[in-house]
Amino acid sequence: MNRSTRREFMQRAAALSASSLLVGSAAAQPAKKLGFALCGLGSLSTQQIAPALQSTRYCRLAGIITGSPDKAKQWRSRYAIPEQNVYSYDTMHRLADNPDIDVVYVVTPNALHADHTIAAAKAGKHVFCEKPMEISVERCQSMIDACRAANRLLGVAYRCQFDPYHRECMRIARAKEFGDVKIVAADFGFTIGDPTQWRLRRALAGGGALMDVGIYALQASRYITGEEPTLVSAIETQTDPIKFKEVDETIAWHAKFPSGAVANCHTSYNASGLGRLRVDAQKGWFELDPAFNYDGIRGRRSDGKAIAPPPANHFAAELDDFAQCILEKKATRVPGEEGQRDVRILMAIYEAAKTGKAVKLS
Amino acid sequence: MNRSTRREFMQRAAALSASSLLVGSAAAQPAKKLGFALCGLGSLSTQQIAPALQSTRYCRLAGIITGSPDKAKQWRSRYAIPEQNVYSYDTMHRLADNPDIDVVYVVTPNALHADHTIAAAKAGKHVFCEKPMEISVERCQSMIDACRAANRLLGVAYRCQFDPYHRECMRIARAKEFGDVKIVAADFGFTIGDPTQWRLRRALAGGGALMDVGIYALQASRYITGEEPTLVSAIETQTDPIKFKEVDETIAWHAKFPSGAVANCHTSYNASGLGRLRVDAQKGWFELDPAFNYDGIRGRRSDGKAIAPPPANHFAAELDDFAQCILEKKATRVPGEEGQRDVRILMAIYEAAKTGKAVKLS
Repeated sequence: MNRSTRREFMQRAAALSASSLLVGSAAAQPAKKLGFALCGLGSLSTQQIAPALQSTRYCRLAGIITGSPDKAKQWRSRYAIPEQNVYSYDTMHRLADNPDIDVVYVVTPNALHADHTIAAAKAGKHVFCEKPMEISVERCQSMIDACRAANRLLGVAYRCQFDPYHRECMRIARAKEFGDVKIVAADFGFTIGDPTQWRLRRALAGGGALMDVGIYALQASRYITGEEPTLVSAIETQTDPIKFKEVDETIAWHAKFPSGAVANCHTSYNASGLGRLRVDAQKGWFELDPAFNYDGIRGRRSDGKAIAPPPANHFAAELDDFAQCILEKKATRVPGEEGQRDVRILMAIYEAAKTGKAVKLS
Repeated sequence: MNRSTRREFMQRAAALSASSLLVGSAAAQPAKKLGFALCGLGSLSTQQIAPALQSTRYCRLAGIITGSPDKAKQWRSRYAIPEQNVYSYDTMHRLADNPDIDVVYVVTPNALHADHTIAAAKAGKHVFCEKPMEISVERCQSMIDACRAANRLLGVAYRCQFDPYHRECMRIARAKEFGDVKIVAADFGFTIGDPTQWRLRRALAGGGALMDVGIYALQASRYITGEEPTLVSAIETQTDPIKFKEVDETIAWHAKFPSGAVANCHTSYNASGLGRLRVDAQKGWFELDPAFNYDGIRGRRSDGKAIAPPPANHFAAELDDFAQCILEKKATRVPGEEGQRDVRILMAIYEAAKTGKAVKLS
């Protein structure tokens, strides 16, 4: 199977998104569905999030925030969004006056997440934010502070945390079914297309493959071990200095965990087939391959037992969970602090790659 | 499939070794079979090499060198070895007077390879030496020098270089069937048993998992890229300080190659299931999993085409190749300089793990 382009991911996932939902299948509907406004109507919002919202139990697509009048028109028509629920980035402060919107889902380029999160929080809205949370630890902190000051919940869209296959891997690791976890080998990447896209611009993306998709491997190493890394080392290579003039093309990194477990990860914007999670434990192994796609995840265990839970739509699952946290006034599994932790480690990986020295993390 | 112990590797491989030979299947026999003396009669010689020698076309098991009179007796009886072809480590210099022995295959612990290689070369014998070649670059050089002075061929037992699956992977990489190779992810390891074995003693082994089995991953990264690494970084962890008091338990390393390819590798004496080779190229991927076992290697390609050549007995293949090189006065694909290159890189990996700094290789 060729998994080489983001577009392919999306097309395949979009085809599946309506058919394989766990969440939303219950007959009884809750008293209230929270109104979500999507902030940023790029391909992720178009192909994944908006379709997934239709299948959620606790959410409804109530509004949009976009810089494009054309997109606003298309979306209003497609999703029956009332005119008063359509905002631009310049007018989104007026969300404060709109009780129909409970949550803003920030899906803009990485370096705009703080601005849009803070604007939404100041307007009294809860915020769900795409990964990576932002492009610096400080900017993540400003988002945490803004939501805390507004007494609003802040969540980061780590969809794999809500995927049944990944949850089963977490369970196997915690239960020590194969003894202690020794090595988490994880990678994610793809051959990036359009050279003009924002993901290749440092000012908007903050970084390249590592920040965009390497973060999945980093997350996996943390939720599989259940630990925080104490040391990272990294190596970076570049084979296309024109396309990757501003952001990283390929980075490999290691992370060391207090238990002695090691993460061995890599990411690339210029290679195909990355997207695996393999856990080597003392008495056996388990793996997901592919691990991080929107769908089609497959699992194996060294003892031949199955890893084959009913699949879930990642986006619907994470959105319903976030809505439930708001409705039930619970903490989210993916708070701003979790996003910030990853950004801190990403920065350490960049530093290690740049200096050639392992970087300690406190 | 549980591949957790060296013993299991051996039992499975021994069962297969007589059945799946490519080499030795030709009807016509050559004029001369070279006489091999096995130096060191541990489990590798017993389970793998001696059985494989029976199936070779250009080799015969003619003699033994052992410190154990009991083993000498058993082997003499089992393989009909004449008394005059049985030596101890103290008497092996007398090989000089024995025209029935052409080649000494050194299968002793790592730190004894130089002594036994030099003794064999001084006795006028060609030398085939197990991996790792030795425990330091300098000791490798002394072996190269001794064989050169004696005008004898020196080869290192890199069995995967003669395996059809690995050769097919080299071909796919060279032919750029998926474009340029970007990442070589390779790992090998097992849960080591008997805590008293020489592999856990620094004086005899020189190092632990990295030198013993990590070397397979290192080799693979070099023969898949066809390049020499220019930089390595590494991280080491230990979870059992008693068992692994003297040698490394788990090491992960990266290597950077001139083309921009990256190797992302790890090895462990305390984890199960390691033994994979995955190559991510620009337009697709190919892999062997398991990759480094004596048998049962399986291959996959991202385009669905097969990697399924007829399997070969690695030991018979490498021994016949070495014998042919001697008979036809050709260079070997695995000369002492090749073994030394790996040892130099292994030392750089240890240094990087120890210092936390990437190490440049010239």
